[in-house]
Amino acid sequence: MTAPRQPAPARSGGRAARRALRSAPDFTMLPGLRSALPFCEIMEGAQIELIDSASMEILENVGVQFRDNIALADWTRAGAKVVGDRVYPDRGLVRELIATIPSGFTYHARDPKKNLALGGRNAVFVPMTGAPFLRDLDDRRRVPTLDDLAMFHKLSHMLPALHSSAHHIVEPCDHPVSHRHLRITYSSMKHSDKMFMGMTTSPRNAEDVMEMCAILFGEDYLESHAVTTGNINGNSPLVWDETMLGAMRAFCRRNQPVLCSPFVLGGANTPANVPAAVAQLNAEALSALAYTQVIRKGAPAIYGHYLSTVSMKSGAPMAGTPEISLMNFMIGQMARHYGVPWCTSNTLGGAKTFDAQAGYESATTLSAVLHAGANYIWHSAGWNEAGMHCSVAKFIVDAEQCAMGHRMASGPQWGDFAEALKAVPDVGPGGHYLGHPHTQAHFQSAFFMPEMFDNNSIEQWQAEGSVEITARALARARALLAQYEEPALDAATDEALRDYIARREREIPAVDELNQDH
Amino acid sequence: MTAPRQPAPARSGGRAARRALRSAPDFTMLPGLRSALPFCEIMEGAQIELIDSASMEILENVGVQFRDNIALADWTRAGAKVVGDRVYPDRGLVRELIATIPSGFTYHARDPKKNLALGGRNAVFVPMTGAPFLRDLDDRRRVPTLDDLAMFHKLSHMLPALHSSAHHIVEPCDHPVSHRHLRITYSSMKHSDKMFMGMTTSPRNAEDVMEMCAILFGEDYLESHAVTTGNINGNSPLVWDETMLGAMRAFCRRNQPVLCSPFVLGGANTPANVPAAVAQLNAEALSALAYTQVIRKGAPAIYGHYLSTVSMKSGAPMAGTPEISLMNFMIGQMARHYGVPWCTSNTLGGAKTFDAQAGYESATTLSAVLHAGANYIWHSAGWNEAGMHCSVAKFIVDAEQCAMGHRMASGPQWGDFAEALKAVPDVGPGGHYLGHPHTQAHFQSAFFMPEMFDNNSIEQWQAEGSVEITARALARARALLAQYEEPALDAATDEALRDYIARREREIPAVDELNQDH
Repeated sequence: MTAPRQPAPARSGGRAARRALRSAPDFTMLPGLRSALPFCEIMEGAQIELIDSASMEILENVGVQFRDNIALADWTRAGAKVVGDRVYPDRGLVRELIATIPSGFTYHARDPKKNLALGGRNAVFVPMTGAPFLRDLDDRRRVPTLDDLAMFHKLSHMLPALHSSAHHIVEPCDHPVSHRHLRITYSSMKHSDKMFMGMTTSPRNAEDVMEMCAILFGEDYLESHAVTTGNINGNSPLVWDETMLGAMRAFCRRNQPVLCSPFVLGGANTPANVPAAVAQLNAEALSALAYTQVIRKGAPAIYGHYLSTVSMKSGAPMAGTPEISLMNFMIGQMARHYGVPWCTSNTLGGAKTFDAQAGYESATTLSAVLHAGANYIWHSAGWNEAGMHCSVAKFIVDAEQCAMGHRMASGPQWGDFAEALKAVPDVGPGGHYLGHPHTQAHFQSAFFMPEMFDNNSIEQWQAEGSVEITARALARARALLAQYEEPALDAATDEALRDYIARREREIPAVDELNQDH
Repeated sequence: MTAPRQPAPARSGGRAARRALRSAPDFTMLPGLRSALPFCEIMEGAQIELIDSASMEILENVGVQFRDNIALADWTRAGAKVVGDRVYPDRGLVRELIATIPSGFTYHARDPKKNLALGGRNAVFVPMTGAPFLRDLDDRRRVPTLDDLAMFHKLSHMLPALHSSAHHIVEPCDHPVSHRHLRITYSSMKHSDKMFMGMTTSPRNAEDVMEMCAILFGEDYLESHAVTTGNINGNSPLVWDETMLGAMRAFCRRNQPVLCSPFVLGGANTPANVPAAVAQLNAEALSALAYTQVIRKGAPAIYGHYLSTVSMKSGAPMAGTPEISLMNFMIGQMARHYGVPWCTSNTLGGAKTFDAQAGYESATTLSAVLHAGANYIWHSAGWNEAGMHCSVAKFIVDAEQCAMGHRMASGPQWGDFAEALKAVPDVGPGGHYLGHPHTQAHFQSAFFMPEMFDNNSIEQWQAEGSVEITARALARARALLAQYEEPALDAATDEALRDYIARREREIPAVDELNQDH
């Protein structure tokens, strides 16, 4: 049954060279996804107008709390009605402000071959972030360290479908919390030359990230090149806090993109109705997107959110549910309506282990966000247990799923259609194609062969030790890490980054999480 | 975990009655899906024409083998060029023939409340069929019996999102193979009052199914009502055999619908190119669809297929791959182009256990077929191990996934949008919605709460015994079966069916599989 894998004919070198070519793993990053899918436009134009109008009425009549004096002063100067800590921007002002947000831009990575377009039909896959635990290379659930974080940055560097090393994929709990943002940022920069995310845990931490980006890329370069992304979480319903707004200003002033992310627990902090939840989320996102332009006109900004629905039985967040898919379709339409790039969360789910639930949840969400037309596809690898842990095994499988989603959303390949059709009369009724020259020449590229799925017979699978998907994925992770090569970083730049970190760690008191709890 | 079945709510009774209402499990069948999704039209009109034209050239120039003398004579009479056992129907004849296939029709079930529309935006979920093994209520993989088959028919009867009890969900291997079709058909009819499928394992077996349908519904009723579905598999590339064609004639003559199903192992029995594989599959489907109308003009027929791609490493069929999704989108477009209802296979996959691979594969395929706009969504529950076993646990979870897909594809509910929005000013910035009257009134219907997904904290999950999804689903299956109530069947009809089976079992020699092997 086995069809031997045939390499493209080498010009010289013979059998050994061909064998080497065959087994050489390819870590080349996939290009940014350029989607060929017709996006799932579940709303008609009139329904888009309904949501828009409802959101604008919320902004004008309910208002949004900006719990931050600088923001309130900024909004007043910008001409918004401000009463107490509540801002009531009218729809004219909101539309005027968001009009200057770029509809697309380019992310610049350390390796310019890994620059990426964002917006419109252009999308990127970014791993999960923020897990307080990991399931490690032995599938053991435990508190993560800086070494664990480095491991995830290395895997992000090597996995072709991941376009970013993100930032705190897991929380490195062996380092003082007040210094962590420095080490996290350095780890992202050092272990990968893909783009990365920037910590926004406080305004001052965000400034540190900007300083480190300036060291890595040059101060002037930042002014005209997006090199990182800061996430600004809202407190739904309708609140933005001081910490987040200060961090937002640090990024916007340097012209670095931010995700404006309402934190939606549908039913708990939104109305129990899908379109009404979207209207509120949309109002929240618009208020923050508009504020980015108050800070700096033309600064890149991305419509974002954390998206879950809440089980009314237990209060737990849910993912992979029908309403999450529907909200993704609708929010995608709203973001396109405003001409703003859109970030959504990908493989969210509540499974405790890497089980069938995790598979259903992740695949349902991946399909939904691809059909919805998301641009910044965040939390694309590793997420499990409602974000409480990042699983190494799931990280590997999710990344392959992203590669499959990338292939699917790129649409069918028509290039060799006419040539392929010629095989039909050659083979004829009742024949088979495995030996046909067209098949021999194209089988490697025609059909995706997932490495992490076992499609052998049960007899073969048992003969090979009945290896479950978690064990297969962990073996793959170990094999990848054994082949990891750190991307070159200019020695002077590296030293400057280390010096900056050392200085700041002297300046900032080392505060532990344990101390913070008291 | 067991939700006790509660009687319908009394007209009075206060708190206890409301509690009973809340916990009463609902076995009411979901209505047929009326999809609100904009279908994923991955091809432009010119590309649809390209596929159509390539398929017609295959039919006209390569031809299709009909390995059956009656069919060859029929085709000759219908005006097709026939050379040897190859039929070369020209595109004019094909278009003329398929034009009389109804674009939609109604399935009639034993319980008329369970009648279902098919075609256009109307879709139904049908469980998997044909598994030679099962994973049982103890997750033990073994050879199935008639009792196992009855169990799956009972579960199909009770699970709301399943619209059919199908036929041989598993092969009942404790009964002579030559008599099996009678017992399978009786089990489908007896244990559920939903629609069911009809065995097509031979022309004579198909006649037996038709006779049993005539006993159940009345001979005249069949003439004008679709009550079952026969599957006619092709041997790709481009072959239809005598067994299948004879069975097709048995169904078409009685005006009962057939699935015209090329059996596609992409790359092995098609070209290694997605659009070319679709062109061949489309030619095959058209040739069989056209033949249904040679048999009986106006007979209902459904564009079908078994769809997998083949791993060129192992020869194994693969599912949940990007090309499967793309082919589904494209085939859906072709079926709509011809105005013929379309059947596709849903949760195919190659996992050996009910693991994360099974979850990814199934959810990816479910999403794809919903976006593709399939009408007869077959193999929607239980499929695993490339169809070698039907898993009870997966059957339960897949059926819930179908309910979730049904909800998603039905689109957002706008009914209480204005009312829900009124909660936004009531709650205001920083508030929460859980106690709001709108939430209280709507939480049960607003957000789907999957029973088979555990979204509790890990601490809760551990405190409850760390129950994995397989165990949760098997507990649910046992609870369902404990509450099963056989739908009433008229005693005289039941006796007539039993008499028919007894007579036929006397007439047909009892042939075992073991004997057949010699």
